[in-house]
Amino acid sequence: MTDRKEFRDLASPAEAHEVVASLDLAPEPERVPLDECRGRVLAERVDADIDVPGFDRASMDGYAVRARDTFGADESDPVVLPRTGVVHAGEEPTIDVEAGECVEISTGAVMPDGADAVVPVERTHEADDGIAFEAAVAPGDSVMAAGADVAAGERALGPGTELTPREIGLLSALGVAEVPVRGTPTVGVVSTGDELVRPGEALDHRAGEIHDVNSYTIAAAVEEAGGEAVLYPHAGDDYDELARQLRTAADECDLVLSSGSTSASAVDVVYRVIEERGDLLFHGVAIKPGKPMLVGRLGGSAYVGLPGYPVSALTIFRTFVAPAIREAAGRREPERATVTGRLATGERYGQGRTRLMPVGLVTDGTGETLVYHVDKGSGATTSLVEADGVVEMDADTDYLAADEAVTVELFSPDVRPPAALCVGEDDPLFARALDAARNPRYLAEGTRSGFRRLRDGLPDVVVASGPGEPDEATEEIAAWTREWGLIVPEGNPAGVTDLADLATGDRSIVNRTTASGLRASFDAALEKSGVDPQDIRGYERTVRAHESPARAVARGDADVGLGLRASAATLGLGFVSLGTERVRVLVNPDRREKAGVETLAAALDGVAGLADDLPGYEAQ
Amino acid sequence: MTDRKEFRDLASPAEAHEVVASLDLAPEPERVPLDECRGRVLAERVDADIDVPGFDRASMDGYAVRARDTFGADESDPVVLPRTGVVHAGEEPTIDVEAGECVEISTGAVMPDGADAVVPVERTHEADDGIAFEAAVAPGDSVMAAGADVAAGERALGPGTELTPREIGLLSALGVAEVPVRGTPTVGVVSTGDELVRPGEALDHRAGEIHDVNSYTIAAAVEEAGGEAVLYPHAGDDYDELARQLRTAADECDLVLSSGSTSASAVDVVYRVIEERGDLLFHGVAIKPGKPMLVGRLGGSAYVGLPGYPVSALTIFRTFVAPAIREAAGRREPERATVTGRLATGERYGQGRTRLMPVGLVTDGTGETLVYHVDKGSGATTSLVEADGVVEMDADTDYLAADEAVTVELFSPDVRPPAALCVGEDDPLFARALDAARNPRYLAEGTRSGFRRLRDGLPDVVVASGPGEPDEATEEIAAWTREWGLIVPEGNPAGVTDLADLATGDRSIVNRTTASGLRASFDAALEKSGVDPQDIRGYERTVRAHESPARAVARGDADVGLGLRASAATLGLGFVSLGTERVRVLVNPDRREKAGVETLAAALDGVAGLADDLPGYEAQ
Repeated sequence: MTDRKEFRDLASPAEAHEVVASLDLAPEPERVPLDECRGRVLAERVDADIDVPGFDRASMDGYAVRARDTFGADESDPVVLPRTGVVHAGEEPTIDVEAGECVEISTGAVMPDGADAVVPVERTHEADDGIAFEAAVAPGDSVMAAGADVAAGERALGPGTELTPREIGLLSALGVAEVPVRGTPTVGVVSTGDELVRPGEALDHRAGEIHDVNSYTIAAAVEEAGGEAVLYPHAGDDYDELARQLRTAADECDLVLSSGSTSASAVDVVYRVIEERGDLLFHGVAIKPGKPMLVGRLGGSAYVGLPGYPVSALTIFRTFVAPAIREAAGRREPERATVTGRLATGERYGQGRTRLMPVGLVTDGTGETLVYHVDKGSGATTSLVEADGVVEMDADTDYLAADEAVTVELFSPDVRPPAALCVGEDDPLFARALDAARNPRYLAEGTRSGFRRLRDGLPDVVVASGPGEPDEATEEIAAWTREWGLIVPEGNPAGVTDLADLATGDRSIVNRTTASGLRASFDAALEKSGVDPQDIRGYERTVRAHESPARAVARGDADVGLGLRASAATLGLGFVSLGTERVRVLVNPDRREKAGVETLAAALDGVAGLADDLPGYEAQ
Repeated sequence: MTDRKEFRDLASPAEAHEVVASLDLAPEPERVPLDECRGRVLAERVDADIDVPGFDRASMDGYAVRARDTFGADESDPVVLPRTGVVHAGEEPTIDVEAGECVEISTGAVMPDGADAVVPVERTHEADDGIAFEAAVAPGDSVMAAGADVAAGERALGPGTELTPREIGLLSALGVAEVPVRGTPTVGVVSTGDELVRPGEALDHRAGEIHDVNSYTIAAAVEEAGGEAVLYPHAGDDYDELARQLRTAADECDLVLSSGSTSASAVDVVYRVIEERGDLLFHGVAIKPGKPMLVGRLGGSAYVGLPGYPVSALTIFRTFVAPAIREAAGRREPERATVTGRLATGERYGQGRTRLMPVGLVTDGTGETLVYHVDKGSGATTSLVEADGVVEMDADTDYLAADEAVTVELFSPDVRPPAALCVGEDDPLFARALDAARNPRYLAEGTRSGFRRLRDGLPDVVVASGPGEPDEATEEIAAWTREWGLIVPEGNPAGVTDLADLATGDRSIVNRTTASGLRASFDAALEKSGVDPQDIRGYERTVRAHESPARAVARGDADVGLGLRASAATLGLGFVSLGTERVRVLVNPDRREKAGVETLAAALDGVAGLADDLPGYEAQ
């Protein structure tokens, strides 16, 4: 086994870039049909092989003449010439234009011999003895000479040109049916990790199975960068099979990617195959989240091992690998898309290496950008869509203060801040209202979190339920009530009727976290009824999301769940009502005019409609 | 036949937008496999169907413990707990964590029953009787609870979300193998016009045949906008076949496009089919170049007829049709990409309708953008690649002065001004140097045009040959000589030996236009030798490009062509030398520091290498 101690020193980000750039990923150029070349890059210069147009072409509908025959003509004293024939586009002229004559001609038609100009039909009228010309023309007027557009032998498009509809138009004109383009680098994506299961297949949660996220994410990112992704079947826990797939991928692809397995044995397989076939170039970059990055050569192919967590894998891919794929495909680096903003809250970090901190954006009432750390814990996949880009924190910086100006590198130039940033109570009716808005973002962290974030000045909208009130002034743009209570198995087999039934200790409950407004309503009801929470079995077993207690009941994992009548109905469970609570949509007054807030407010005007088939909901 | 007089009034651009928007192009939504959904748009909301993670998951390598067992531990006084087992990722724990014990655990593994926290391995060391814990942890530390990322029943992604690698990652995590997406609008492209020939097939120039440019350009633009283009076979001059294809396309597609045939009968066919199956909504927009635009319904499909000239067709497509396709596909309107600049030269127009004037861009020495009209004549296909965008001139504006500030709508947000704008003499060696530069633009309009444009302050670089000198100060960055003379058929059958042989009038010549430096060298030689140009047959027959006279000789269309020894060699023709002329690459001194100019200068440092196999060339 290769001695990993060689790589105890992490590569600097600059060294990592250099090593990855030195891997030659460029495949052979190829020729593709004209109608499939969009987005590809010319491998070589294309010179014109023919004149365009290939003949002297009329560029107006009118009459082909010898220009000198029109000299002196004007509206008051037109020159009349007999019309001796007609030429349409796409036909060979059967008649010449002799001195003192004219021939009718269509746009695009071949100029008949003898003629040297076209008089547009608008400058003529029919006369008794021919066509009356109301204006003189010069030789060449309204005629495009053969080769005037592009002439045989001229350079038409240079190597490295990206082929958009415009270049495709020029290639068509030149008659180029097969286009010489840069090859598409083939990138094999090998999935490692015993715990991974393909989406669409069922998971065994007890065995710690999870869906394979990185393979699909990275494959899509490979294609976005201009590569062709090849997904290899998951090798599971068979390490010989994994070794075989790495070898096959190295034979078939220009680059092989895998994303970090947590299992040491998988890493050993990678080391073994690299040792057998190539070189290990470095292991680990001094960047968070890049420490586990591994780069090497596998025979004729290159190999990059990405970190295992999805946000880390994609960040490292974007930072180090995508530029190499674009370079190989001949694609331009996209305009580096950055925005500057100020940090909503202070951020501490001090591990002596550069950090790429995932952040979200929100536009404040004055159009300025606020930047907040998206910190859902290592391995959260929702961070993929809840972050808009990264802020690079220097190795030397261990604290960024609130309001500090930062530069955000966006995940792509298309990324825009959400139209409305909403935080607060998870609620099915509000989720429906979100569907009407374009590009909203909802952080369903609970009512208390909504209030806390409002103190930081972050959200546009807070969704609140239960007894709490925000410290800040807000404007209520919509409100409704929802019926809540105890969710029990269908038919309520244990015969739960009220809160007192929970205090006997023979039914286990699943509760909500204290951030939830519904939990606050529950606690208030307990207090009112005099039931001691300590007597409720499972009172400390809390979950974040509104439907989770009901789901625990549905799968037989608890006797009772705190939840909504609507959730019980959705899941076909029994329900013991304990009351209703008001859900309020509160807007940060500075943000009331934001277009996304307006859209949301308009959607919530129809709150009665949105509540329509949600049992226990009532518009207010 | 529909009475076209109804549409004598042109639609306003706003009316045209409204009518096109009213055509419903949206196909039914569909479900596509996860690995094919990149770039598509969600048709409906996706809620989480499972908890992610599906179990309480260790988020660090370390030891699963009961947090309370670590209370009080620190580096100087660690707590030691016996290690009773190990749990890897992807396996079901076979052991519980009892009070006072610990179990080794890998990142991603299922938390064993009994444990409520993980102590990272870095905060531990092996001790004689177990694992020594150097820090206390709280319940939940280094554990991601089931559903903490996203919980079953939560709204995960909203309708209308564009699917990038990030959203694909979240869908993978949720196990969504088939993704509900908006349908891709199918757009039939029907080619009309007798004169059109598919690229790859030979043209009959005498019959006025040209390659079909619009079908490929528009098909590529359709795909860029998110549609699927279907190219129908060219119907040629068979109008029944054209009618049949329009009907088929209308049955098979959401939208049918054709681009203006100049033949009245083709338009009649379109009218006939529209009358038979649908409605004609308008014909003609008050915009240049949109006058011939035609919009209607063809049964269940929509129909738009585009103008015939490629730049016009693409401009009208981009302005009116692409937004409707994007809307149907659910794609966002791209950020409107505009740049402001000042006009290099005055521009006159006054036809009482809005004009979308194609323009090119160049960055001056101070980084400011100069804008110039790309005016290669109607129907030029090179304008497609030589223009960067359009300037909208109001119907009321009939003159824009030089230096006036204008806003350019770029053809796409990717468009950037050329790295170096070069104008002047067409020369094969210079064309090779251009290959080394990324995104250069070369307008091979001749030496005189180079000098004229330099007076307007436009180009970065002028390529000059022959006796002329620019009025402005320039810096010469490279020079070479090229041998020129008379190109004759192979073996020189007519025995041409010098200029005097041309004056006999029995050999016809093809000359270059007066913009060419080579032409100036020719005229100077004639004057020196005392030959009267009037005695040379074909002296007035001039062509723009350097190889065109030689090509006329090659196809037997002239006895003699003015040209370069290099061109004679390329085409296997005879050559009578008349001397050498110097070709100079002159840089506008204000632009010397531009990166593109530097690249070009570096490439031209190797002028000897570039001249290598070009006969008659010598580096200087």
